[in-house]
Amino acid sequence: MTPAMTRPGGRSAKVAVAVHAAVVELLAEGAPLTVPQVAARAGVNATSVYRRWGDVAGLLADTALVRFGTSSPVPGTGSLRGDLLAWGAALVEEAGRPEELALLRAAVAAGPADPGAPEGFESACSACLTGRSTQAETILAAAQARGEETPTPTRVLDHLVAPVYLRALFGLPAPSVEVLVELLVERLAAPATARATPGARR
Amino acid sequence: MTPAMTRPGGRSAKVAVAVHAAVVELLAEGAPLTVPQVAARAGVNATSVYRRWGDVAGLLADTALVRFGTSSPVPGTGSLRGDLLAWGAALVEEAGRPEELALLRAAVAAGPADPGAPEGFESACSACLTGRSTQAETILAAAQARGEETPTPTRVLDHLVAPVYLRALFGLPAPSVEVLVELLVERLAAPATARATPGARR
Repeated sequence: MTPAMTRPGGRSAKVAVAVHAAVVELLAEGAPLTVPQVAARAGVNATSVYRRWGDVAGLLADTALVRFGTSSPVPGTGSLRGDLLAWGAALVEEAGRPEELALLRAAVAAGPADPGAPEGFESACSACLTGRSTQAETILAAAQARGEETPTPTRVLDHLVAPVYLRALFGLPAPSVEVLVELLVERLAAPATARATPGARR
Repeated sequence: MTPAMTRPGGRSAKVAVAVHAAVVELLAEGAPLTVPQVAARAGVNATSVYRRWGDVAGLLADTALVRFGTSSPVPGTGSLRGDLLAWGAALVEEAGRPEELALLRAAVAAGPADPGAPEGFESACSACLTGRSTQAETILAAAQARGEETPTPTRVLDHLVAPVYLRALFGLPAPSVEVLVELLVERLAAPATARATPGARR
């Protein structure tokens, strides 16, 4: 059983919500993250936290999975450009919030894989991008169903998610989502004739 | 005086080399970074380290500035494509090395700016990208001098450096530098007629 598979609304789900909130709060405060501190902030027994999440790596991974998997939902504007613009803007806003940025930083600091993490826990790092990849695939599948030309999910990760996250992590100003999306939609997805019209160049 | 401005070959420069190496080694070992530990590993007095670098944030920033500013030098192949391919491949290799990756992670974890750092010290975060920006500008200026069309330095940061660094930081496989560079050279830099030829599409 993975921690994310608990029933919504039940006791177990309420504990998860409190624990995830405690992790994010402590990180944003710059407090060192330990299981007893998370348990105290969430108002639950440390024993339950150890049993369910294993350790700090497990806590981080599950928090990142839930936080970055459910936030910034797929917009459904009816066009690839519209969806990428709305979703990209949501990513920029999210990566600029102290709590989400602290969670991203902590996940990066924790490394790609924690050998001490119990089996079944995704590493905090990959957990940050799992939800994003799924959302990108959803946006692209909807565009394809409408008959639109699309870039690959990897292109969306490399040329929309990567600039937004890298600039946030390194303290640079956020990129213009319009410019990033123009590249994905007009230069990578549209047919050559559309790309060659002077109006499409920038 | 910034720490990077010491004369090469002098006593002061030798101390800096030993201290930078100690920082990178300790990070790669996963050891907690403290001034006394860095001093001990480098074989210098902790007092000298405090006086010159201030604290751990100053140590990190100066190490990142030197390490990421002097490594992966600009290749000079005679073409924009050739330079970006060689430089991008060097960035991929570097971001995959345990020492450089540990330094990137530590810089990200340290945040965009440390209010406790003494004035004149660049934050470790921005220091990681300072050298990269300078190198990108050098490559682009050389291409412009040859009469080549070029993307902007920001495009190179967003679409070559960002995917390489983000994937390394989050533990994903490295991107194909050829694919990233094709986008920068053929889709963003070349004139529309070149972009419209079927052979240039992918």
